[in-house]
Amino acid sequence: MDNYDTEQAGSSHWHLGPIIDALRTSRESTHNIRHQGRVRELPSRTVLRQVIEGVSAALFPTHYGRPDLNDESIDYFVGDTLNVALDRLVEQVRRALRFTPGMEDIAEAELAERARAITRRFAASLPEIRALLVSDVQAALAGDPAASSVAEIMLCYPGTIAVLYHRLAHCLHRLGAPFLARLAADIAHTLTGIDIHPAAQIGASFFIDHGTGVVIGETAIIGKHVRLYQAVTLGARRFPLDATGALVKGAPRHPIVEDDVVIYAGATILGRITVGAGSTIGGNVWLTQSVAPGSNVTQAKMCND
Amino acid sequence: MDNYDTEQAGSSHWHLGPIIDALRTSRESTHNIRHQGRVRELPSRTVLRQVIEGVSAALFPTHYGRPDLNDESIDYFVGDTLNVALDRLVEQVRRALRFTPGMEDIAEAELAERARAITRRFAASLPEIRALLVSDVQAALAGDPAASSVAEIMLCYPGTIAVLYHRLAHCLHRLGAPFLARLAADIAHTLTGIDIHPAAQIGASFFIDHGTGVVIGETAIIGKHVRLYQAVTLGARRFPLDATGALVKGAPRHPIVEDDVVIYAGATILGRITVGAGSTIGGNVWLTQSVAPGSNVTQAKMCND
Amino acid sequence: MDNYDTEQAGSSHWHLGPIIDALRTSRESTHNIRHQGRVRELPSRTVLRQVIEGVSAALFPTHYGRPDLNDESIDYFVGDTLNVALDRLVEQVRRALRFTPGMEDIAEAELAERARAITRRFAASLPEIRALLVSDVQAALAGDPAASSVAEIMLCYPGTIAVLYHRLAHCLHRLGAPFLARLAADIAHTLTGIDIHPAAQIGASFFIDHGTGVVIGETAIIGKHVRLYQAVTLGARRFPLDATGALVKGAPRHPIVEDDVVIYAGATILGRITVGAGSTIGGNVWLTQSVAPGSNVTQAKMCND
Amino acid sequence: MDNYDTEQAGSSHWHLGPIIDALRTSRESTHNIRHQGRVRELPSRTVLRQVIEGVSAALFPTHYGRPDLNDESIDYFVGDTLNVALDRLVEQVRRALRFTPGMEDIAEAELAERARAITRRFAASLPEIRALLVSDVQAALAGDPAASSVAEIMLCYPGTIAVLYHRLAHCLHRLGAPFLARLAADIAHTLTGIDIHPAAQIGASFFIDHGTGVVIGETAIIGKHVRLYQAVTLGARRFPLDATGALVKGAPRHPIVEDDVVIYAGATILGRITVGAGSTIGGNVWLTQSVAPGSNVTQAKMCND
Amino acid sequence: MDNYDTEQAGSSHWHLGPIIDALRTSRESTHNIRHQGRVRELPSRTVLRQVIEGVSAALFPTHYGRPDLNDESIDYFVGDTLNVALDRLVEQVRRALRFTPGMEDIAEAELAERARAITRRFAASLPEIRALLVSDVQAALAGDPAASSVAEIMLCYPGTIAVLYHRLAHCLHRLGAPFLARLAADIAHTLTGIDIHPAAQIGASFFIDHGTGVVIGETAIIGKHVRLYQAVTLGARRFPLDATGALVKGAPRHPIVEDDVVIYAGATILGRITVGAGSTIGGNVWLTQSVAPGSNVTQAKMCND
Amino acid sequence: MDNYDTEQAGSSHWHLGPIIDALRTSRESTHNIRHQGRVRELPSRTVLRQVIEGVSAALFPTHYGRPDLNDESIDYFVGDTLNVALDRLVEQVRRALRFTPGMEDIAEAELAERARAITRRFAASLPEIRALLVSDVQAALAGDPAASSVAEIMLCYPGTIAVLYHRLAHCLHRLGAPFLARLAADIAHTLTGIDIHPAAQIGASFFIDHGTGVVIGETAIIGKHVRLYQAVTLGARRFPLDATGALVKGAPRHPIVEDDVVIYAGATILGRITVGAGSTIGGNVWLTQSVAPGSNVTQAKMCND
Repeated sequence: MDNYDTEQAGSSHWHLGPIIDALRTSRESTHNIRHQGRVRELPSRTVLRQVIEGVSAALFPTHYGRPDLNDESIDYFVGDTLNVALDRLVEQVRRALRFTPGMEDIAEAELAERARAITRRFAASLPEIRALLVSDVQAALAGDPAASSVAEIMLCYPGTIAVLYHRLAHCLHRLGAPFLARLAADIAHTLTGIDIHPAAQIGASFFIDHGTGVVIGETAIIGKHVRLYQAVTLGARRFPLDATGALVKGAPRHPIVEDDVVIYAGATILGRITVGAGSTIGGNVWLTQSVAPGSNVTQAKMCND
Repeated sequence: MDNYDTEQAGSSHWHLGPIIDALRTSRESTHNIRHQGRVRELPSRTVLRQVIEGVSAALFPTHYGRPDLNDESIDYFVGDTLNVALDRLVEQVRRALRFTPGMEDIAEAELAERARAITRRFAASLPEIRALLVSDVQAALAGDPAASSVAEIMLCYPGTIAVLYHRLAHCLHRLGAPFLARLAADIAHTLTGIDIHPAAQIGASFFIDHGTGVVIGETAIIGKHVRLYQAVTLGARRFPLDATGALVKGAPRHPIVEDDVVIYAGATILGRITVGAGSTIGGNVWLTQSVAPGSNVTQAKMCND
Repeated sequence: MDNYDTEQAGSSHWHLGPIIDALRTSRESTHNIRHQGRVRELPSRTVLRQVIEGVSAALFPTHYGRPDLNDESIDYFVGDTLNVALDRLVEQVRRALRFTPGMEDIAEAELAERARAITRRFAASLPEIRALLVSDVQAALAGDPAASSVAEIMLCYPGTIAVLYHRLAHCLHRLGAPFLARLAADIAHTLTGIDIHPAAQIGASFFIDHGTGVVIGETAIIGKHVRLYQAVTLGARRFPLDATGALVKGAPRHPIVEDDVVIYAGATILGRITVGAGSTIGGNVWLTQSVAPGSNVTQAKMCND
Repeated sequence: MDNYDTEQAGSSHWHLGPIIDALRTSRESTHNIRHQGRVRELPSRTVLRQVIEGVSAALFPTHYGRPDLNDESIDYFVGDTLNVALDRLVEQVRRALRFTPGMEDIAEAELAERARAITRRFAASLPEIRALLVSDVQAALAGDPAASSVAEIMLCYPGTIAVLYHRLAHCLHRLGAPFLARLAADIAHTLTGIDIHPAAQIGASFFIDHGTGVVIGETAIIGKHVRLYQAVTLGARRFPLDATGALVKGAPRHPIVEDDVVIYAGATILGRITVGAGSTIGGNVWLTQSVAPGSNVTQAKMCND
Repeated sequence: MDNYDTEQAGSSHWHLGPIIDALRTSRESTHNIRHQGRVRELPSRTVLRQVIEGVSAALFPTHYGRPDLNDESIDYFVGDTLNVALDRLVEQVRRALRFTPGMEDIAEAELAERARAITRRFAASLPEIRALLVSDVQAALAGDPAASSVAEIMLCYPGTIAVLYHRLAHCLHRLGAPFLARLAADIAHTLTGIDIHPAAQIGASFFIDHGTGVVIGETAIIGKHVRLYQAVTLGARRFPLDATGALVKGAPRHPIVEDDVVIYAGATILGRITVGAGSTIGGNVWLTQSVAPGSNVTQAKMCND
Repeated sequence: MDNYDTEQAGSSHWHLGPIIDALRTSRESTHNIRHQGRVRELPSRTVLRQVIEGVSAALFPTHYGRPDLNDESIDYFVGDTLNVALDRLVEQVRRALRFTPGMEDIAEAELAERARAITRRFAASLPEIRALLVSDVQAALAGDPAASSVAEIMLCYPGTIAVLYHRLAHCLHRLGAPFLARLAADIAHTLTGIDIHPAAQIGASFFIDHGTGVVIGETAIIGKHVRLYQAVTLGARRFPLDATGALVKGAPRHPIVEDDVVIYAGATILGRITVGAGSTIGGNVWLTQSVAPGSNVTQAKMCND
């Protein structure tokens, strides 16, 4: 940095021309987001977040919508908020579908109709999703001695937000919009530090306390009344390779956690194993084998193996 | 998904009517935020964040306020910023108080006066809080070899933000606004990945480095000159139940950490134990018993037990 | 809180005068951000984030810019977006430089010219940085069985964002703007839960999966084709002190990770040790000694020591 | 301006102290907006504009609301939009009432109830107001050879906006909120250049073309099917004074314009005169005496007087 | 207003149900913006204003774009700004076309292609429009003794804005988007108080000083080097009716003003008359007959007739 | 428009390249805002409007600032608001000065110091300006039978806003920032339809009612207690030319209006004439000769001349 003086003092030119040329060359050589000459528009993280906030407001209008609604006004609010959210969602579904393997080439009209159908089914699932979320909130209230009210659970627990996003993302995944579901899950990850793959199947009355660092993998299956603490991993132990040595995508490789299990902070549970109903897994435990129902696994025990 | 074609092609109707009916039914059967026919307005996360940012700007005007203040203008800025923040805070305190057990039924005028009193005391506590925060920043500068200036500590350390929010939230908690304090703590958790319950008592010169995944429980007590690293848990070992099997809320169940303790990354310290003054707790240590002052606990030692 | 009634009922005065006086006294006694009578303006977190988002949009216009660009319009977008970002960056570099030890006193004109030179070199480095980022995305696609497309890697992986910010921050660090680089790193930490010091040296094809809680220290050196999972720490074991007992800042104290290493979730690797090329470090492993190339370290093995 | 150099070069101090003192002195000596020790909050121009835009959207949802509403969604939109607007309006009415002569001292609870009653009656008047506005739009379509569609009348005619604001402002005026009504009228004046006092009484099927510079005074009465062009004044000729020489406020002093009258650009009609039904008043005419029904007044005629 | 007390004190219900029912009934009986079961989306005033501001910035980048552009960056700015504006414009043209008589029923694809063609031709016309606007600015500088610089003309003269909007609106009108052109003209009217119908034909070097209240009708034709002052009307004298008594729309009915004419403030010129080249029309003149080239018409003369 | 089909169907390319080339050519041939290779940044309309709103809030904090200020908080608000406004203003003054004839070439440092000096003097003038504005408000209250309160005058009269902007703009003009003063005047013109040149000299207790279309020229001089109505022009009769036939800029050419004059709507007063103290000028009067003090001029009288 000796030669500051020899550069064009006082200039605010950035020599953009060659940089832009080099960036163009780089783009052209390495990736290509066009498909058959057509730009595929990506879904928007900002809009999807607005959609989920809108749906959340429709599901829980006084908690996530407006605090001053009354019997007269609440259904108008729910109806209008939901309508706006769904009108926005259908466009994001449409964009995301184009990136689904096998849908790169279907006609625009069919793509649009599929997006509408998915959105309509998503809307129809909302009452059922709400019931699950109510069970989750009740589980939190029952499970945390520091929790003093439903309002506190709804407003002050990242686990509540993470599960809310997951239940909506899982619905989108199940209805055939996996890319958009992943985007929703990543928004939740950013907001909460909790990373749940949208394909994971999670039963009612689910509660994550504190939550930062929790990871739940793609093929995990979780029963009812399960409680997790921060930094719990439900992960894969190894990744199956195919004959060519490439990763096999989508194969079952994450744990099955049965009903009424509690998993304390920092526990790491890996592979397609089963944690039997009613078990307790202690903090920091490293578990790679199935355990019978009613087991009580602690780190000390693991160290003794 | 075979029957796309049989749905109403081209329609953007979402069949809102039955969904809204079902959501209303779900709301009515499961929870009720009205109290004696009156809506209880929830505090606003957005407004509370603005309040804390305003207070932060008043406490540290050149770091968190505006960079171009000078001797002539700084007190006007502090005064106006603080006044706006307090005017907003009093409304949030008022809303939150209504959710405090025992205050559901007190008269509006008394509620408002309590909110004003709490806000006035909060304001009066700010110089003292500032002194604590200055001690925290100095501890960070002394404790991290990568830190090069006060400005870097103020702007680039999530621990600084987490402790700033905690000291303000703890003050609100202590003055009788526990729900609002929890909301402040959760905002900090979202921003930093550090989860400190507002009831936790923390002495001067406190420093958290990196910080992601730190959890400090409701009844934890931390002395002066304590330093924590990422993913440290000061948690509960078990939750006391009452005669009916329900959780006892608020009982002491988290560690006491005395002065001059250092706790390295990933250590998990559980239960109402005491970490004696001047001790060092190594990374990933799992600690559920008290240790004497001056102890040096490492993972190896724990495994050997 | 018995005496609510004796306070001035109905007043919204906050007794600001004495609070503001006390805050002024506190400011004057404890820190001073003026240098020789001149305010040193701090860089702006908000503006720096806009700068990095602008640069990201210029690097990957269809993913991080606007989804509807075509061959005709893309270079105009890149050029204008980059120009705006660089015009903003140069001011932030200038502000940050003033906080660099040794630059407190240099003349404004020289400071401005240094800021321009750094910004110009930063701009010139962008094509090279883009090439590295492309290698990172390809590594992610190859390394995660749940990843289905480049678009998903770009939009839904916090690791992608963390590495993007790191490569830009590292460039700023290397060009002589360490404070601004730290601020960029902390923005990424907030967004992703991944904390990489901008001085850390990281080779091509780097992939972090899930990522929450990852910490990579200031003097860490990472080779090519390295893969990390959540909660991995590449930290310091102890901090060297100088003759006076003060921390020595900047000394090598973090690991060297050679090419083709995989480090699973929760592993903690501390000190200036070397993880030999092609090694695998298992989940939750605690490692404080160098391991030879091709090692396969698991927790069990560590416990057996 | 010769002595620039003798001022403090390089300073950005504005010598605020004495200016602020002088402004305080000026405030204290000249006006006082407190009433009996209580600040009277002024209504907000910004919020009132939002209220009127919300009401307009509820009245004409596809023109002033959202363009993509359908049979399923439109009533939810209308209901929610109206509810939000009325919730905001009631607070503005409450503030404005405090400035009504005779209401400076009534109790807060009574003031609030009056505001609610006015707002409720305003809401109940909306269908009737809508019918008037529809008649106005039809009159515009019939009366302007350049108009090609209802949509053009709704979106591109300042007269439409002015009349919309007037009909809402007049309703507020009539219900007992004259100050707020004036504020609404002034917003319309700013938007359109058309200045209609909210007390003016205007019949159905009213059309103002071009409109800039039109002034319609407080006690004007206008029949049905009246058409005005730009710069028409319906003003007062002289202001009655009381015995003390002070202005008598509110006395009838503006024209009565009967049904089916056309008044061309720039005509000035002053005093409590009557323009008989079916008359035509030519451009630039200066008229201070009543004219019989069916009159055709032109400038030439006036000059001949 | 005697019975405030008998209403439901304390309620904030607005009795929305019957109001919404009545508004629905009113909508259904009076107008219908659907065409063959399809909603016709209206163009957006807000978006069109953004489009025109974007085009203005592309035409005059340093005056209406960004003040810090240089030789290196200016074309990137122009290209990107123009591209964004045109991408937005094409959607507004498409919406507006659907309201064009005769286009209610054409297929979506044809409508979209027409919109693209119009937008493309509009873009191609911009250099020519810029040349006209430059001539207008030069005419202003030459014609106003108070004007001191081009910058002042560009930034501080409503006439400049009105003519800028008109030249763009007239181009849209000429290319077949008359409704959108009217909307652009009305935006200019709101901003400037100057009301120019987009169909009016106006030659180069046109200058309007002060401008408030100027009205230029649909079929007016104005030559080169014409100067107008505030409150000038170029209007219609009477509206031709067809055999049924309905207005004939679009017939020539406004003045022709030849080259080098000056028309002073408040002059009213009505009907399909011709103001000969080089004439001067005095302030407040009322003119309904053609005048020969070189005429000097003053009010005094008119009064003497 | 027959050949839609022959254009590239489905393309959204706008053929930007040749358009951008043509615009560049047009820019280069017709105007040049660089001065000696340096871009002269234009002042910002948006920022100047914010400055004036800030100054207005500081002058009348409860009317134009925040409605909830009290004795404790008001001076903090005034001080901070004023400081922010002045910090912004100084940059706008600096930019505008560069366009002042004779200042194109002065050094940056001198320009900056002149801008600071002007801003400091502007600040020091504010108490005096406030006193004038208070006299104006009192004149309005005394002069309009429809006005019911000071609050109504402050919030609902465009004349109040126009005079507020004028008094600030005139101060800037007088202190040597004529271009910025013009920009402020044009903002007021846009907001109110009232066009007052900032060089016009206007005495205390000035009131404009309704106001749309009022024009007051550069060299007009207005005494105390003068009242104007809408569409009054105080203009120039003819423009003096120099020996070369070019306009002489700045020569006295607008009326002098002495104390206690009332001028009714639409009156046009042209040339360097004097309207004697206490005169009344009737509506629509056309006046080009001086009138003695106490005159009562009406249109009828003028026609009789």
